[in-house]
Formats: sequence, C-alpha cells, structure tokens
Amino acid sequence: MAGTLTFDGRTYPDGRASDPKALGWMQGSPPPADRRIEFGKQALLGFPQIRWTLCHTREFLPTVNVWRGDGGPSTFAREDLAGDIEALAFDDLQGRRMQWQDALADTYTDGIVVLHRGRIVYERYIGELQAHVPHSCFSVTKSYACTLAAMLVHEGVVDERRPIAHWLPEMRGTAWEDATLRQVMDMQVGAAYSEAYADSAADVWAYSRAGGTMARPPGYDGPGNFYEYLATIRKDGAHGEAISYKTVNTEVLCWVMKRATGLSLARMLSERLWAPLGCEQDAYFTVDPIGVPMGGGGMSAALRDLARFGEAMRCDGAFNGKQVVPAAVVADIARGSDPAKFAKAGYALLPGYSYRSMWWVAHDEHGTFEARGIHGQRIYVAPGAEMVIARFGSHPVAANSGNDPITLAQFRALAGLLRGR
Amino acid sequence: MAGTLTFDGRTYPDGRASDPKALGWMQGSPPPADRRIEFGKQALLGFPQIRWTLCHTREFLPTVNVWRGDGGPSTFAREDLAGDIEALAFDDLQGRRMQWQDALADTYTDGIVVLHRGRIVYERYIGELQAHVPHSCFSVTKSYACTLAAMLVHEGVVDERRPIAHWLPEMRGTAWEDATLRQVMDMQVGAAYSEAYADSAADVWAYSRAGGTMARPPGYDGPGNFYEYLATIRKDGAHGEAISYKTVNTEVLCWVMKRATGLSLARMLSERLWAPLGCEQDAYFTVDPIGVPMGGGGMSAALRDLARFGEAMRCDGAFNGKQVVPAAVVADIARGSDPAKFAKAGYALLPGYSYRSMWWVAHDEHGTFEARGIHGQRIYVAPGAEMVIARFGSHPVAANSGNDPITLAQFRALAGLLRGR
Repeated sequence: MAGTLTFDGRTYPDGRASDPKALGWMQGSPPPADRRIEFGKQALLGFPQIRWTLCHTREFLPTVNVWRGDGGPSTFAREDLAGDIEALAFDDLQGRRMQWQDALADTYTDGIVVLHRGRIVYERYIGELQAHVPHSCFSVTKSYACTLAAMLVHEGVVDERRPIAHWLPEMRGTAWEDATLRQVMDMQVGAAYSEAYADSAADVWAYSRAGGTMARPPGYDGPGNFYEYLATIRKDGAHGEAISYKTVNTEVLCWVMKRATGLSLARMLSERLWAPLGCEQDAYFTVDPIGVPMGGGGMSAALRDLARFGEAMRCDGAFNGKQVVPAAVVADIARGSDPAKFAKAGYALLPGYSYRSMWWVAHDEHGTFEARGIHGQRIYVAPGAEMVIARFGSHPVAANSGNDPITLAQFRALAGLLRGR
Repeated sequence: MAGTLTFDGRTYPDGRASDPKALGWMQGSPPPADRRIEFGKQALLGFPQIRWTLCHTREFLPTVNVWRGDGGPSTFAREDLAGDIEALAFDDLQGRRMQWQDALADTYTDGIVVLHRGRIVYERYIGELQAHVPHSCFSVTKSYACTLAAMLVHEGVVDERRPIAHWLPEMRGTAWEDATLRQVMDMQVGAAYSEAYADSAADVWAYSRAGGTMARPPGYDGPGNFYEYLATIRKDGAHGEAISYKTVNTEVLCWVMKRATGLSLARMLSERLWAPLGCEQDAYFTVDPIGVPMGGGGMSAALRDLARFGEAMRCDGAFNGKQVVPAAVVADIARGSDPAKFAKAGYALLPGYSYRSMWWVAHDEHGTFEARGIHGQRIYVAPGAEMVIARFGSHPVAANSGNDPITLAQFRALAGLLRGR
C-alpha cells in the first residue's frame, strides 16, 4: 500500500506520511486533543508521536545538562557530495533495490551527517529535527558511557578485573556481585532480566518505571530509582560466556564510575568529551528521581556532536587538535571481542560481529564499529573508508531489525562509494 | 544568635551556615536519605534545600530550552573594583550598619555581577552556583516576557488597548474577558486570585499544581495545565485602578503572544533576546503538562546573561552592536506608570515606585528600574549611575521583605559609589 510500511506483520504510515510537522503535533495554544502529547497519558515512544517526541524529551522528563564548556565549537570543513550520494542505489538485505532518499524515508530518518576524511560531505535534517536540537540517542548513550569507563580503566582509576561488589557492596546477592567490570563492559553478565521491547511485561519497563522515564501506575510501590531497581536483579546463568544485551549493565557501570570518581556521568562527559571535542551544543540526560543520569539510554545530543565523537574514534581518539580518547582505548574497541560469544546472542542481521566496551564491531573490510540505539540511532565508524555517519531516526519498531535491513546495506554502499575516492 | 537570622518571627541558619556545598545536598551515590531531594517528597523551595535546588530546577521538572543561537558570546570588558566595593559599608533600611560581604551572606546571595559603564567590575559565585549554571529567575521571568510583549505592541503586532478576549475567546467569563492587554501588562486586573506565598491555601499553589511545578496529591482532578487553570479565575473588582500583583497575568500575556504570533515564549526569547544579546549559555523554562513555558516565573538562566539584558535596558535597548529592544520600548518602561496606583498595593519598602510592563520603577535620582523575583532574584538597572546589577539568591523567605531591607540599601549605596566615578 502506498504510504505505508509493514514490520513484523504490523502496518505503519511510512516516513513521509508520518512527518511530524505535517501531522501538527503539539501545535496551537493549546494543541488540539488529538495532537497533544502528555507524559503519562500518551506513550512517548508510541507511533507516530515518537516522530515528534524524540526531539523533545526534556519537555516531558527531568534532565541534567552536559555542558559544552566555555570554548568555541570545533569546526568542520565541508565538501558537498550530495549529488553523488543521493544518486546512490543499492540492494538492501532483503534484495530490494533502494534509492538513497527512499532509504532515508523508509528508515524514518530524522537527520544524517556523513563525514569523509573529516569533512562534512552530506547533512540533512528531516521532520522535527534541526541541527542545534538534541535528539534522543537511546543506546548510543552506552557507547559514550563505556568509552569513559574504558578511559578510566586505561588510566588505572578502576581495575576491570575486579568484581562489581568491590565498588558496590550493595550489589551483593545480585547478578553483579561476582561479575567483573570487564564482563559488565562487554555485556557478558548472566542476569535475570528481559529487554524485549515488544513485550509489555519485559523487565525493561519495570526499570523505566523505577527511573521515572515511564509513568508509574497509581499506588506504585516498586523501586524508587535505578539503584533500588538494580538491587532486585538476580543472577541467571554464568558470566563471561556469551553476549547478553541488557541495559541494566550500563547503569551498574555508571554507578561504579560514580562511586570510584565522585563525578556524575553528565559532568564526566562534559569534562572528558563534550568540552575537548568542541561540541557545539550542550547535551542532556534524563535523570531518575534521585538525580542519577540514565547511562543506559538517556542522552539527547545534537547530531553534529555525535559526528565529532565518531570522527575522534575514527582518528585513533584525536580530534580538535587534542588526543581526546587514548589511542589504546580506541584500538581496543576497534579490535572487538570474541565473535563466537556474540554469535550466541542470535543477531541474524549481524553475522560475524562482536561487542566490546558497548560498541558493536563488524569485523568487516572497513574495520567498521558502531554505536547503535533503538529506533534508528547510529554512530557508524568505518576507518577503512575514512567515513563516519551519525544518524538519528524515529522508526516505529524499537528492534534494530526494523531498520537494519536497509541501514546496514545503505551505509556499506556509501562506504564503498567513498573508500579511496 | 550567631549563625542564624530571623524573619517574620522564624529563625533560619544564615547564609554561611546554610551553604549548600557544606551541607552536602545530593552528594554520594546514592545521596544519604537526609541529604536527598526528590520531587513530591521534599518541597523544592523549602529551606535550606532551596539553596541547592534553585541551581537544579531542570533535574526535577520538565523544561524547554531557550537556545542562545549559533554565534559566539558577546564579551564584557572588565575592571576589577572588588577592593572598593567590598570596602563599602552602608546603613540598611532598618538602620543597621552593614559591611558589603555580610550583606551578601545575609541575603543568601548565590551570585552577583556588577556592571559599570558596561564593564564587569565585580563578580562572585557562592555556594552551589557557577558562572555557566542557570539559576531560577522566578519573577524576573516576567520582565523578560513583558519586554517581548511591549516589543510586539511597538511593532503593531498586538494592540494594547484591546481586551484579552479579542485573542482568547476562552477567557470570556473570566477576570480577563474585558481587561485590556495593557492592564494585564501593568498588573491592573481585578481578579479573584491570591499570591501570598506564606499561605499554603493561596491560589498560587493551585496554579503551581495545575502547571505541574508542584506535586499533585493522589487522585488530583483539578485543572490539567495553565490554560485550564486560568479559565477558572473570576473577576474581582475593577480593572485599571490599582497595581495588583498576580502571576497569572503573565501567563495570560504569554498566551496572547502565542496566539498572536504562533511562537512559544522560549522560541521568541531565543530569537529576539538570547541570540541578539550574544548570551553565553542557553536558558530554559519549566513547562506545564502540555508544554507551555511558565512565563510567570519558570525561567532559569546564567547570571552574566541577565547582566547582558540589564545592560541593554540601561543603554536604551542597544547591546552587542545591535538595537536589541526598541529605544521607545525601554523609555516607556523606564518612565514607569502612575505611582498613585502602585501605592494602593501597599508595598511599604517601595515608596514612590510604579510598575510598568512588569518592571518595577523606582522614580529615584538614578532612574532605577528593576526586574524582581522572590528569594532574591534581581536585575537592577540604574542608568544615572551607569550601573547594572544582576543577582541570584536563595533566601528562605519568598516575600521580598526578606531581603529588601538590606538589598535596596546595598544597591543604592553601590550606585552612590559608582556614580560619576
């Protein structure tokens, strides 16, 4: 049907038909009832309102600032390759011939920046997103948080071989008591926790209610914050044997960093990445009821600032005239971990990948590694093609299976176009 | 008693004894129970936690950004007059001899910037505040909002002689149906609404619950947002006869501006003041459940950015090489309105004042006019002394009677020191 797309048997308006500006969300004073989005009344991540809400998270939830610092922003050189890029056609993973702009629309893209050799060669904002507006990053947040953790490990501030209970005695009796910091960083923890977003009974929603990012029912008497929630998770299976992707690991990781350094995630990110990278906009985190930033997925940031981080990761940690991330930390991430442990997780669309320090490592001919977030968030670093892509989306399907069939093929095709150009 | 101060018969730890850093609010992971502040569990404006919360409003409430724009910040020249200023002694309005630094402490000052001829001659941050951190402005927000309104009047976008129902048919049957826009701008509306902050049954708290800035009790079924609340306020007395300070007037004013321009207050402020002034930090507003910025008192901003606005107002609207506010708008504000109507409001500490476009006009020898917010917020513009003061505080008493006996005398003494220097 024209103007619709079908995923997992459900049909949705496509990217163009669900354009949030055309639909008029939250326009008017007051917005009409059928175009109004209120926390606790509508699901912020429901479709099609998600196409608006992901640019407005702070207007619904308490947040903490990630300050960009006092300096001027770092600048990008530009070379306009829009003509070549928009002429690109490719076969997606399901064998459909796709045109570039249809691929953007069919993955519900809100914005995309492509860097080649550090120059912006392509940049588009679609729908509600503008260049200066922070957009929800979801699990791209994890790659930021764990890069910080890897820096602390590199500096000897924390020893990745120690069990979590070393820093957090509160974790005794939980899944993390005897998990090492490295196992947490690589998501190799056996924990009784489900993250199937399509299942409304999944533990991820209990975690969201504890943290306050999802409305609590009347009379709610569950965990009051992230830390209280983490204390309820029991061990399930062995650690260190397989990738088992659970956002709560990132929350534990951030708790360790806070305990070890005394600094909040927001402040560490400001001092160690946002200011040194010369980011152009402040970012922010949603916070739980006791002010803890949601390290597992709560960051919102501007798209070019994601591109800055991706470019630093492409360039062995150097950007804006500084070594922002130690080269050894970047090399360790880019090298990945054991694909056999990753294979056990059963990601059919990511054959041969591994997962290291909360980055997804493709082990492909471009040395690609990615920060990936639900609904289409990406930092895609392809050193062999001297290419970085930062992309925001508001796809109706939380699983990456929604956009990966197009996105992975699209980004690989672009790497092929730019490589050696 | 050493280390305490008494207001209205209640005794409080003084400024130094209530230093929020020394008290350790929200430190630790998690913060200990007696140093933890949670929305709905502790009053954000209770003392002494207010000394911390006013620098962290967004960590408790949903907010919308006021973007500073893409340009670099405007710069201030500096001349350090700290020695002369801190040597200043003066008699406060109660006849007590005060030293400058004691006056800062005894008014629970969080930060102060003094400009003389546009140069920063004094700048201090105390307790939780830092130069780049936005602090609650409370009713200083009103002066920003109404300066925008006066600009729209000047441009002919809205006619100040029209009744509010011209723009807002929803206001038929309320206090504002037949009030003119100018009467709203000058707070000369007869409305059944009480703003006595010390009275827990005052209407201002119902307004806060409607807007979501104060926690709602279980089963709350009152107005769901600011607009719904405004529709409940009935007329009480005549319009145009006396100053009657009611925050809801500013909310009505902002609703008119939104209806007339289609732009939110946050966006208008960004485009018309924050970007042209070259502000150095984004500001923000708390928003109600349908995303409406609280124009009556919901802004948080960095202190030097308040100083920029004050300096523009001192300089007939010109700043950063631009005419940011039309000179005629500034002149109309500085000229004030009828002191006889102001006198009826019974502000014992403000004899001879008037109120114009939500600025407080002293009619003194320096041509002083002020933006004033509870708990000690100020932009103090004294053109005759070529002086602007921006000051943030977290005074335990919401009424300005708490700090005015010191602050007014202190700022006048400083104007005397700097005038003609």
